[in-house]
Amino acid sequence: MRNTLRLITAGVALACSSSALAGPKNIIYMIGDGMGPAYTTAYRYYMDNPNTKHVDPTIFDQILVGMAHTYPEDDTVVTDSAASATALSTATKSYNGAIAVDTHKAPLKTMLEIAKEKGMTTALVATSQINHATPASFAAHNESRRNYNEIADDYLDNKLAGKLPVDLLLGGGTQYFLREDRNLVKEFQEAGYQYSDSFSTLSDIDKLPALGLFADKGLPYAIDENPERLEIMTKKALSLLDKSKDKGFFVMIEGSQIDWCGHANDIACAMHEMHDFAQSIKLAKAYVDNNPDTLLVITADHSTGGLTLGADGKYLWLRDVVQGVSKSARELAKSLHNAKDLKTTWVTHTKLPYNKSTAIKLKQAKAEGLDALNSVVKSIINKASYTGWTTGGHTAIDVQVFAHGNGYQDFIGSQNNTDIAEKLINYLR
Amino acid sequence: MRNTLRLITAGVALACSSSALAGPKNIIYMIGDGMGPAYTTAYRYYMDNPNTKHVDPTIFDQILVGMAHTYPEDDTVVTDSAASATALSTATKSYNGAIAVDTHKAPLKTMLEIAKEKGMTTALVATSQINHATPASFAAHNESRRNYNEIADDYLDNKLAGKLPVDLLLGGGTQYFLREDRNLVKEFQEAGYQYSDSFSTLSDIDKLPALGLFADKGLPYAIDENPERLEIMTKKALSLLDKSKDKGFFVMIEGSQIDWCGHANDIACAMHEMHDFAQSIKLAKAYVDNNPDTLLVITADHSTGGLTLGADGKYLWLRDVVQGVSKSARELAKSLHNAKDLKTTWVTHTKLPYNKSTAIKLKQAKAEGLDALNSVVKSIINKASYTGWTTGGHTAIDVQVFAHGNGYQDFIGSQNNTDIAEKLINYLR
Repeated sequence: MRNTLRLITAGVALACSSSALAGPKNIIYMIGDGMGPAYTTAYRYYMDNPNTKHVDPTIFDQILVGMAHTYPEDDTVVTDSAASATALSTATKSYNGAIAVDTHKAPLKTMLEIAKEKGMTTALVATSQINHATPASFAAHNESRRNYNEIADDYLDNKLAGKLPVDLLLGGGTQYFLREDRNLVKEFQEAGYQYSDSFSTLSDIDKLPALGLFADKGLPYAIDENPERLEIMTKKALSLLDKSKDKGFFVMIEGSQIDWCGHANDIACAMHEMHDFAQSIKLAKAYVDNNPDTLLVITADHSTGGLTLGADGKYLWLRDVVQGVSKSARELAKSLHNAKDLKTTWVTHTKLPYNKSTAIKLKQAKAEGLDALNSVVKSIINKASYTGWTTGGHTAIDVQVFAHGNGYQDFIGSQNNTDIAEKLINYLR
Repeated sequence: MRNTLRLITAGVALACSSSALAGPKNIIYMIGDGMGPAYTTAYRYYMDNPNTKHVDPTIFDQILVGMAHTYPEDDTVVTDSAASATALSTATKSYNGAIAVDTHKAPLKTMLEIAKEKGMTTALVATSQINHATPASFAAHNESRRNYNEIADDYLDNKLAGKLPVDLLLGGGTQYFLREDRNLVKEFQEAGYQYSDSFSTLSDIDKLPALGLFADKGLPYAIDENPERLEIMTKKALSLLDKSKDKGFFVMIEGSQIDWCGHANDIACAMHEMHDFAQSIKLAKAYVDNNPDTLLVITADHSTGGLTLGADGKYLWLRDVVQGVSKSARELAKSLHNAKDLKTTWVTHTKLPYNKSTAIKLKQAKAEGLDALNSVVKSIINKASYTGWTTGGHTAIDVQVFAHGNGYQDFIGSQNNTDIAEKLINYLR
C-alpha cells in the first residue's frame, strides 16, 4: 500500500489520480514451498539456452514485484511451513507447527474460508499430500501439522455456512482419506464430489465439487515420474474453476516438493520441481491475461537447505552437470544399490564420468547401505556442479513476491508475509 | 521500463496519464559489495528491538523495488566485483577482472565519465582503497583489477574534456597514491585538489575538487575501528556535492567491506559493515527527501560467502550471539594470540561462555598459530549463532535493487545489472 501511495505522491512525472479500487474477482495464490531466491536464480541459469549470448529471463523474472519476511511469532527467526502458511493464509504470525491457529491454539479464519463464506468457489492443489502443512493451513485448524488424520477430517468437518470448505482438492494423500476408522473419500462422494485416484481418470472429472488423490502421501518427485503433474493439476483446476468464475474463485496452488528436494540437498531434484512449478505459473499467468479481473500472487513460505550457486571458493556453477542428472539422489541410490554394473547406472543417470575416485566412493558406500549411497551421490553431484548447502532444514532469508493482474501493484516492495495475506483478505471482504 | 508501462496499461484502478519524463538532476548510486539478500535479511533480525512484538523493518525494507541478475559475460555464472562493477557502470557485461573494458579489453565509457563530460560534478566514495575494483570501474579502464597503480594513475591521466574525471575521491589507498615512482597526491594538489589523510582533518576540506585517503589500503573493519567511517564520508560527500547541485552531480558510494567480511565468513564483521552502509543510506535518503530532483539507486554487485541464517538442520538464528561479538575474527585471533589469559579476552569480545570445549579448541589453535585461531574463532561463533557459509568466494544469487526519489519506479521488478546502468545512463544523456 505504501508503494501505491508512493506512486501517487512521489515527485515523478506521472500524473496519476486514484479512483475507487475494485478488487480482483478471482485470486490465484501460488506458493513455492522452500523456494528462496537462490532457487529462482538457479532455475534461470539451469534453463538458459547456451546458444544465446544473454541469459534468458524466466517467468519469475517477468512478474517479480517484491520480497517478504518469513519469521514466525517466536524468536527463532527461522520459520517452518506451517507457521508460514498460517501467516500467508490468515495474516497472523504463529508458532512453528501451527495449522491456522494462533499462539493460544485458537482457530484463525483463513482467506479460503472468507472466500467460501462469501459464496466464492475454493480450491487447493499441491504435489504433497493435500493435508500437508501448506494446503492444510488454508482449510483446517490444528495445533500440530503432524495430526494428518485430523487435518484430513477437517476438510469435511470444518463446514462453513453449511458447506464443505473446499470445492476442489487435488494432490496426494489416499492413506489419510481411506482409513480403517473413517473413509473420507466415500463421505466426499456422498456429499456430491466427483473422485479421481489417477491422472488417467482425472479428465473424467467434469465439474465441481471434486476430489483427486494421486498418491498414498506426496506425489513422486517430478524428476522420477510424471514431471508435469503440477502443471496437469493446475490446468484441470483452472478449467474447472473457470466454469464458476461468475461468482469468483480462490485457489491456492503449491509447488510442495521444491522444499523436499531442498531438505535432501538434491539440486537436480529441486530444478525439476522448479520447472513443474514454473510451467504451472505460465498457465496461471495466461489465465490472468485472458481474465484481467483475476489476480495472481506467488511467493514462498521460506527457503530451504541454504542453497548457493558457487561453493568451496570457486567462481563457477555448472548447470550442465545438474541438467545431466535424470533421477533424484534417493532413486539413483536405489538403482545403484540394486545394480550389478555401477558404472552403467552412474553414467546413464548422471552423465558424469565414472572415474577412479567415483568408483571407490560408490563401492564403499554400497557396502555401507542405501543411506550412505544417497549421501555420496549427492556429495559427488554437488561438488561437481559447485552447488553449496548449509543445512537439511530451513533458513530465514527473505523470499520473493511475484504478482500479475488486477491489484499486482499492491505487492511492490518489501513486506511481511502477513501483509500479503492482509492485502488478499482485504480484497475478499 | 516494462513495469512503468505496466503501471500505466495494466487493468488497475489508477487513472494515470504519462507526461514527458524529466530525469533526475542528481544521482546517488550506492553499491553494497557482496550484499546478497541474506545480508539485508540478517541485518533486519540483527537490528531488531527485542522489546517489540514485530520485527522492525530496516531502511532497506523501506525502499526495496526489485532484484538484479549478476552473471558475467563468460559462462561461469558467478561474477567477481570487477565484472559486476563494469556492468553496473557501463551497461556492458564483461569478464571477471575487467575494469570498464569489454571482452576485447577495449575501454567502455562509464556513467561517471558521461556525467563529467556533461558538466556534472562527480564523486567516488568507498571503504576499500579508492582504486579497488568497484570504484575503479567508474573512472578507470584496465584489463585487470590487480593493476592498482595503473588504476590510480588513471584517476589523473584519464582526462575527460580536459578535466580530471572525478571531483571528489574519498577512501583508502595512500600506498598507491604516494609511490616512489609517482606522487599522485602531489599531482592532485597541483591540479587544485584539497587533500586530507585523516578523519580528523576531513572537516578542513571545504570545497571541490578534493581527495581524501584514510588508510594505506582499505580502511579498518567497522567492527574494529571507527564504525561510522562510511557514514562520515557520505555526509561529507553530500555536503560538498550539494554546493554544486545546480549543475547536477553523480556520486557512487560503496560499502566495500561487506564483501570482505563475507569472504572471511565473519558474521559479526559483516553486520557492522551493513550498519555503516545502512546509516549512509539513511543520509542519502534524507538528501533525496530534501532534494526531490535526486534519484537514489542501491544494489549489490553479487553475494559473498553463501551466508545463511540457520544451519546444520536447526530452525534458529541467534542474533544475540552475533551482537555479543565486538572484534573481527582476524583481530580477535590476534588478541587471543597475544593474550596471557584466553578466557578474559574471549568473554570480553564474544560474550560466549568459555567452556571446556571452547578452551580446548582455542588452546590447540593458539599452539598452531594465528590462522588456526582465526578459523576456530569463526567456527565457534558461526556454530553458536547457527550461521551457515558455503564458500570463501562469491555466489550467483540475484541481488536486490532499492530506489527512492525521481525515477525510482523505473527500477521496479527483475532486471539485469546492465539494465540498471542503462536506465541511469539514459537519464544522463
